[in-house]
Amino acid sequence: MAITKESIIKALSTVQDPDLKKDLVSLNMIKDVSVDGNAIHFTVVLTTPACPLKEMIKTDCINAIHKHVGEDVQVFPNMTSDVTSTRNTAPLLPNVKNIIAIGSGKGGVGKSTVTANLAVSLAQSGAKVGLIDADIFGPSIPTMFNCEHEQPEVKEINGKNTIIPIEQYGIKLISIGFLTPPDNAVVWRGPMASSALKQFISDTDWGELDYLLIDLPPGTSDIHLTLVQTIPVTGSVIVTTPQKVALADAKKAIGMFKQPQINVPILGLVENMAYFTPAELPDNKYFIFGEGGGMKLSEQFDIPFIGQMPLVQSIRESGDSGLPAVMKDDVTADAFKELSQKLARQVAIRNANLAETKKVEMIN
Amino acid sequence: MAITKESIIKALSTVQDPDLKKDLVSLNMIKDVSVDGNAIHFTVVLTTPACPLKEMIKTDCINAIHKHVGEDVQVFPNMTSDVTSTRNTAPLLPNVKNIIAIGSGKGGVGKSTVTANLAVSLAQSGAKVGLIDADIFGPSIPTMFNCEHEQPEVKEINGKNTIIPIEQYGIKLISIGFLTPPDNAVVWRGPMASSALKQFISDTDWGELDYLLIDLPPGTSDIHLTLVQTIPVTGSVIVTTPQKVALADAKKAIGMFKQPQINVPILGLVENMAYFTPAELPDNKYFIFGEGGGMKLSEQFDIPFIGQMPLVQSIRESGDSGLPAVMKDDVTADAFKELSQKLARQVAIRNANLAETKKVEMIN
Repeated sequence: MAITKESIIKALSTVQDPDLKKDLVSLNMIKDVSVDGNAIHFTVVLTTPACPLKEMIKTDCINAIHKHVGEDVQVFPNMTSDVTSTRNTAPLLPNVKNIIAIGSGKGGVGKSTVTANLAVSLAQSGAKVGLIDADIFGPSIPTMFNCEHEQPEVKEINGKNTIIPIEQYGIKLISIGFLTPPDNAVVWRGPMASSALKQFISDTDWGELDYLLIDLPPGTSDIHLTLVQTIPVTGSVIVTTPQKVALADAKKAIGMFKQPQINVPILGLVENMAYFTPAELPDNKYFIFGEGGGMKLSEQFDIPFIGQMPLVQSIRESGDSGLPAVMKDDVTADAFKELSQKLARQVAIRNANLAETKKVEMIN
Repeated sequence: MAITKESIIKALSTVQDPDLKKDLVSLNMIKDVSVDGNAIHFTVVLTTPACPLKEMIKTDCINAIHKHVGEDVQVFPNMTSDVTSTRNTAPLLPNVKNIIAIGSGKGGVGKSTVTANLAVSLAQSGAKVGLIDADIFGPSIPTMFNCEHEQPEVKEINGKNTIIPIEQYGIKLISIGFLTPPDNAVVWRGPMASSALKQFISDTDWGELDYLLIDLPPGTSDIHLTLVQTIPVTGSVIVTTPQKVALADAKKAIGMFKQPQINVPILGLVENMAYFTPAELPDNKYFIFGEGGGMKLSEQFDIPFIGQMPLVQSIRESGDSGLPAVMKDDVTADAFKELSQKLARQVAIRNANLAETKKVEMIN
């Protein structure tokens, strides 16, 4: 019996995407099926290049064809990706597929460190990534990307003055830190800060992006409201430490995103500074800030627990020296890579199951 | 020769206050001199009950009298204190002698922990202490004082509805945390938050206080501007960790207080989470967040370096359990006590050398 495209598609329709819980064919993830004698070629379009299940899905495809089409065929799956989006028809930044806000409630829990490493790790996987440092009063991103002295160009595009983001490590970046001298305090009331954020969104040349990450400031005030009133946010990530006072503030951030008028899906919770391990005592974990608080919080609010990062001197050093930890070749790099894959999965799951987030109307 | 009051005063006029660099008599610190045969009694009125030089000044007084009046007299100095102030004629809260804002620029550096321990330590020394938790979006003070479920009374005083602060460990406290459910986010734009702070200052029954501490939120925005526009602040304290991104934000906080229109004296800089020492390796100091950054910053801006607090699990646990570390009997308690004494000294030095801080007129 000749091998037909139809028989291959039928075989592949038995393979499930474990996250999206549907088969690859129904999910429109199979393209370009071709048969050349015994050789079977097809393309699997994953929902993100950072897909942690890539190898598993590939193996599942090969096995399904061997089982349903024949043991003696040669299977050549071409694994590729096209990041999903619910924003294709959005009035603002329709070429930005996903906007992800990273918040914490409390400052100093490592939100910028997590954001910087997520950005680099997603870019390393092949995604197009941008990052807005929305912490107008304490911008850390320029330091963490070793570009504190860069100044973005402003170009006229379609008759509008447009900021060209700084590019570093393949990521497009914008921060108030590029626009003000580093030692100067930006002593602004809320409306001034909000107008800076609006410019970072509306008057910046972001081009095409798979993921635009937004590093939020602490609190639940002007910047947060302005963000969700300016552009619908695909989803949010909550960073906390296991400390009671940090968890309390993380609850407030969760509460904000869950408010019915705001209603931004929460994609995951990250526990940072989970424990400290001295180099001399590699088996000791010092739970300086307490133990298990992040996991408990994620269970309480039914939020995916997507990562537990240790308190490691090298992560802090990497941030201070402007070379994010994930760019090094060590265990912390692996941990951040895994975190970014889990986040990318949650984005894909969210896009498959939920409609576009709605812009928030004026509140307060 | 009979011993006279004059000879005693003359002897005591040779004793200097090491901080204020003048003699005790000129400083009006000697009261109630009396001579009863060989017994000499007098009162030394120090500038703060938390004076770390109390014993030294007492010994200096005894020695001066032995030297200038006679070896064979018995000297009974009565060491007491009356906290100095530049606010006696202030239009708002004239009975509050000193208003001290504790800021950091960056969140999560332990500002609330330092503030809580300073408050308790000053109160333990005998001072009358109040504390405003000005972090409207992340109030930690109720947790740190184990009074999260308290609700302040509101009483009509002189025809005005007045909030009665919560009292815990001898300290008068007010926080947005007493007025809103703990899990709820206060999602407010700046003006709402500012109006809460104004009520905490103007519509709260603070009575007589030696020190009113104000735990500021991160950043340099609405709350900070509203504070200095509502009530002149005696002085500020900057808390930082040695981490580069924290130091960068601390510089911004310093920059804000030093702005000519704001001009709040900076009383001291505290480096928190300076190093971690595991119980099993008591000689090891892990400079997880970097080394020496606080000291360098204080030198750069000519700010007194008033303390270096280690990263100690028990300090965090104390905060989470609501019993500030300084209330325990251990080395961290001693460190916080020393910190509070150094701060009290700096307040006295500031009051001796500078006029009252001026209220800030509208900026931005």
